[in-house]
Amino acid sequence: MRIPSKRNAMSDATAPTWFNENHDYSGSAIGFRVTRRLHAEQTPFQNIEIWESTDWGNVMVIDGCMMVTTRDNFLYHEMMSHPVLFSHPRAKRVVIIGGGDCGTLREVLRHDEVEKCTQIEIDERVTRLAEEYFPELCEANNDPRAELRFEDGLKFMAEVEPESIDVIIVDSTDPIGPAEGLFNEAFYRNALKALRAGGILVQQSESPLVHTDLLRDMRSKMKGCGFASLRTLCFPQPCYPSGWWSCTMARKGVELDGFRERGAQTKTFKTRYYNAEIHRAALAMPEFLREALGE
Amino acid sequence: MRIPSKRNAMSDATAPTWFNENHDYSGSAIGFRVTRRLHAEQTPFQNIEIWESTDWGNVMVIDGCMMVTTRDNFLYHEMMSHPVLFSHPRAKRVVIIGGGDCGTLREVLRHDEVEKCTQIEIDERVTRLAEEYFPELCEANNDPRAELRFEDGLKFMAEVEPESIDVIIVDSTDPIGPAEGLFNEAFYRNALKALRAGGILVQQSESPLVHTDLLRDMRSKMKGCGFASLRTLCFPQPCYPSGWWSCTMARKGVELDGFRERGAQTKTFKTRYYNAEIHRAALAMPEFLREALGE
Repeated sequence: MRIPSKRNAMSDATAPTWFNENHDYSGSAIGFRVTRRLHAEQTPFQNIEIWESTDWGNVMVIDGCMMVTTRDNFLYHEMMSHPVLFSHPRAKRVVIIGGGDCGTLREVLRHDEVEKCTQIEIDERVTRLAEEYFPELCEANNDPRAELRFEDGLKFMAEVEPESIDVIIVDSTDPIGPAEGLFNEAFYRNALKALRAGGILVQQSESPLVHTDLLRDMRSKMKGCGFASLRTLCFPQPCYPSGWWSCTMARKGVELDGFRERGAQTKTFKTRYYNAEIHRAALAMPEFLREALGE
Repeated sequence: MRIPSKRNAMSDATAPTWFNENHDYSGSAIGFRVTRRLHAEQTPFQNIEIWESTDWGNVMVIDGCMMVTTRDNFLYHEMMSHPVLFSHPRAKRVVIIGGGDCGTLREVLRHDEVEKCTQIEIDERVTRLAEEYFPELCEANNDPRAELRFEDGLKFMAEVEPESIDVIIVDSTDPIGPAEGLFNEAFYRNALKALRAGGILVQQSESPLVHTDLLRDMRSKMKGCGFASLRTLCFPQPCYPSGWWSCTMARKGVELDGFRERGAQTKTFKTRYYNAEIHRAALAMPEFLREALGE
């Protein structure tokens, strides 16, 4: 759970100083050396700041929590999109819940089989600031297959036509705060109903090391709501607590066994982290996690 | 390169506060919430502090750099020992250069095939403090197969009997400071000479993301000194810069292709991170790293 940080005292001055997120839940901190604050605002939903850093490009901070840096976001965005899309035989219709920085959307649209990708971000300001400060993440926003909607993802999922979606990507903030409802049974039941047979939900599932209990709880709710099988993937993400993160895939009706390895090996687009080997690697379960999740 | 931190102002008071390592080289910081400083001393080699943390057990800090925490050291120690030992057909004679906290030694001695493991730590105080503040890491120090020597690893390697060692583990601090000589050609040439045919050197090789240049340079030196093949393995390590770390194996005379998977699957000792799947996973190369290393 990401909780607003008690950060170092900080002005808008240009002399480099350190901006640290002291993460209460885990008792660990992550920080970057920054030169100035480029933007700050309070939206109806949250506090958003953009900082310029010396080595990590721009940094987006929401309610005191590091969300995205220019330098390391590729890890998270690639792992939230390519494993699930190469696990599905042919995902034509994709929905992203959250994902306002548009980095996941960009990766999804690298897949030719995707005919439409709808992004449901509650806070339009996240996207407008991403367009300004992370323009490379927004490169696909004008793709004719992209639909950007600024509304409540919970409401969207409750009302969407049943069996109309192949892949749902929950690219949200942490389960405490505005995104809390995206980690409970009501949402999972609606997501399951919205998926076509064989459809897959993938959700960011926090740090394997410091959020193990949360991960177990989330998986137990997914199973309890009727998903047929689950897989948790681990990957590095320096700007998040512990530097180690995960996402969890939950499939409707069908086992999650393997992925389109040949497709991943012969993909026609460039990635910086993801490849077929890394996909297999992300599925490897550390001993402590295997035990904690009862696998 | 780990460089002493400009840390938060800090007293010995018991109210929790944050101890951050602001890592100049990468412009990123790592920290822990701590309750008190348990020990501080200047040895002939370095400054050592031990802090008590709220969530990570004890933390050893050398020259301002996080070295070990009770909670997350298993990642590093298991990955510095088990992959190399399961890559070697039967390592009887192991030498650890550095490794004063004894965590790597403990893991090495879990392997029955190891007949002797000599640890060459330059600073005896690291080991004495580990015995006091990380006793679980020192559980194997009295194993009859363990030999603890407190001397210069460079000198040891220059003088050791040729072709007498199966596995050399370089578990050192960063390549700036006292450990600098462990990352240069003279050391690699001596290590190569000291290894038996098919022997393997494994060395901690910093962060794949923020030390990519260093990693490339180190590999190029290893190759240049005559090692037959190299493999870099990546793994999470929250207490080190970026939270993502690596080790590099270099083999004498023989290709490093595969490992004793069956041995890893049927190992008779318990681990918390390592298993055969994780071993394979650690060998997967991210796209950017494959490109950077010219693989």
